[in-house]
Amino acid sequence: MTEMMSHAELEAALRQIGAERYHWNHPFHRRLHGGECSKAEVTVWALNRFYYQSMIPVKDAAILARMRDPALRRAWRQRIIDHDGEREGDGGIERWLKLTDGLGLERDYVISTEGILPATRFAVDAYVHFVQERSLLEAIASSLTEMFSPKIIADRVSGMLANYDFINEQTLAYFGKRLSQAPRDADFALDYVKREAHTPEQQAAVLAALTFKCDVLWAQLDALEHAYVTPGRIPPGAFQPGAA
Amino acid sequence: MTEMMSHAELEAALRQIGAERYHWNHPFHRRLHGGECSKAEVTVWALNRFYYQSMIPVKDAAILARMRDPALRRAWRQRIIDHDGEREGDGGIERWLKLTDGLGLERDYVISTEGILPATRFAVDAYVHFVQERSLLEAIASSLTEMFSPKIIADRVSGMLANYDFINEQTLAYFGKRLSQAPRDADFALDYVKREAHTPEQQAAVLAALTFKCDVLWAQLDALEHAYVTPGRIPPGAFQPGAA
Repeated sequence: MTEMMSHAELEAALRQIGAERYHWNHPFHRRLHGGECSKAEVTVWALNRFYYQSMIPVKDAAILARMRDPALRRAWRQRIIDHDGEREGDGGIERWLKLTDGLGLERDYVISTEGILPATRFAVDAYVHFVQERSLLEAIASSLTEMFSPKIIADRVSGMLANYDFINEQTLAYFGKRLSQAPRDADFALDYVKREAHTPEQQAAVLAALTFKCDVLWAQLDALEHAYVTPGRIPPGAFQPGAA
Repeated sequence: MTEMMSHAELEAALRQIGAERYHWNHPFHRRLHGGECSKAEVTVWALNRFYYQSMIPVKDAAILARMRDPALRRAWRQRIIDHDGEREGDGGIERWLKLTDGLGLERDYVISTEGILPATRFAVDAYVHFVQERSLLEAIASSLTEMFSPKIIADRVSGMLANYDFINEQTLAYFGKRLSQAPRDADFALDYVKREAHTPEQQAAVLAALTFKCDVLWAQLDALEHAYVTPGRIPPGAFQPGAA
């Protein structure tokens, strides 16, 4: 019989999952930050990751649609505003497109997502379905990878600026904004799951939701590495760097 | 402007997608049939593929639930009967478990699906969501990989029996049944999409649905190869052959 964890124990268990399963442990990320990726590899990373970025507000809207408390919705809707912006040309998705612009990809091609790996689409869509189908508690808990993102973003920005001459402050504008947005979002979600997980089973579901989300991020890098690094076999129909 | 294809042209276009994208082209399949896989590799293939098998009747029930024509439902329900059986110990899922039994996996572990790759789960769940969310025409078209499965099954059975001393006729019982079931199912679905795709757009959607389904199968083999063959990096939490 599992016992109820204290709030501090729950947070420690969440951080432990991050330490073991967050994609900062993935070799592709280490190569990306360490300057070992070719421009083609950075490009396919940015192209595939665009689909993830573009679906974040869809995911957050699905969560918003399940909330019955206006105060909760007021807090959560900021995430959608952050990604979609206050006006045309603003917001996190637009800032991600500055990165793909800088890498020489056509915007229409990026936005079409036609060149992404099927495995990217399956992983991202699994995240959207998860927040639609699981409890609101699990849906909110699945956002808790934000607890770890300031560290990975700091490493990414400094490593990429130092190592790639095709990357500059402007093309990495997305990450600058996230350094202030992510901790605010993570604190809110962490407080929520501490407060609303009332049973050992609910606490276990919170941990499982974070594990699931780590799997979603990890699977995207595995697919990228398989297609473009080792063994480097691009699945039928996906983007071919040489042909760009 | 795309023009309407004849039934023969539509069928030829479907067969062309199969020729280019069906997983018979995947190196893992060639290794599996050719006797180049280790027992551990055959085992992780059977373990992961069990999740696909176990969700087929869920997928078919989702399609059944969208059909408004009793005659159509009468034909389609046979697929569920084939997989779930007439009684305990019967049916395709049970026959797949004979394979995992023969490979030395515990049934409870296989059925729990806890050791499968997250990418397997994402791909299979994408298939289930596809048939729930797209048109009935697309849902039925996504089953058309059955057009190609008798060939791959014949290669698999003869190749695996010839090459692996841990495989025998009994552990491959699943495939024997499918050799008669799959053509019947494929003929039905092919007739349906020829008859019910009334516009060029609907014909294009039929082709896209088959492409999607080929991606679902291909992504599963890519994930398996990445985790267990090249580079052979098992994602956190997945089955470790050495530890079995």
